[in-house]
Amino acid sequence: MSGRIFATPQDAESAFYEALERADLDAMMAVWAEEDEIVCVHPTGPRIAGLAAVRASWERIFAGARGARVQITHRVEMAGMMVAVHSVLENFQVPRGERPPAPIIVTNVYLRGASGWRMIAHHASPAPGPAEPRAEPRAEAPKILH
Amino acid sequence: MSGRIFATPQDAESAFYEALERADLDAMMAVWAEEDEIVCVHPTGPRIAGLAAVRASWERIFAGARGARVQITHRVEMAGMMVAVHSVLENFQVPRGERPPAPIIVTNVYLRGASGWRMIAHHASPAPGPAEPRAEPRAEAPKILH
Repeated sequence: MSGRIFATPQDAESAFYEALERADLDAMMAVWAEEDEIVCVHPTGPRIAGLAAVRASWERIFAGARGARVQITHRVEMAGMMVAVHSVLENFQVPRGERPPAPIIVTNVYLRGASGWRMIAHHASPAPGPAEPRAEPRAEAPKILH
Repeated sequence: MSGRIFATPQDAESAFYEALERADLDAMMAVWAEEDEIVCVHPTGPRIAGLAAVRASWERIFAGARGARVQITHRVEMAGMMVAVHSVLENFQVPRGERPPAPIIVTNVYLRGASGWRMIAHHASPAPGPAEPRAEPRAEAPKILH
């Protein structure tokens, strides 16, 4: 497991999606807090709780899908001193000519601990259709929780 | 809108599900933080952001469904000074003889503000099948974030 320290929730989120795109299990698990209470919901999947089960779920996913490209849009952020909540849409890219799937709606929650920001919850579920092509006014200005 | 103050995240969650069962829009919106950054995902629905849009979504839901009964199970909680994350399964009750639907997987996030604990995120998506009938060891002992 990597000893990377993420200085901000966004650093952790960027590492999460880089690991997802590379199907890199160690890099993925370096983003997660090492807690029994972490929870992960993959699209149309069950609720998974605990570090071992979350790791096993990503191992299964990465065994079957390499080289994914995902674009994150429609970000809404709430950031506090210790916890940050990011709501985003994941848009998976498909080969030219194929119809893109509906985006995945995601709630990511990050906790600040002794070793920086780590993910404690990832809840992903398919959107019912294409995302509205609108601007993202808060992409650079997360709401501060206090 | 009610002036209720919720002293704990659990108080806010209990009020959320009471409002859901009673289809009481004012009671429901009294649980939510009055912020543009609140996000709500109903099962199989789009990501909804902002107080007005969240209110409108519950108004539509409550117009069509009254008298629901929901049992909350498989709770995993992480609680900090300012933010709490609850992962639960919602089990909607159906009339005798009907086959119960798969539970709804839910991530609820609460923020402590000047007027107590309020909901800032509710992400709900259908589970792929029945929940495992197992014990809930952490129901009374949430993980403390610090």
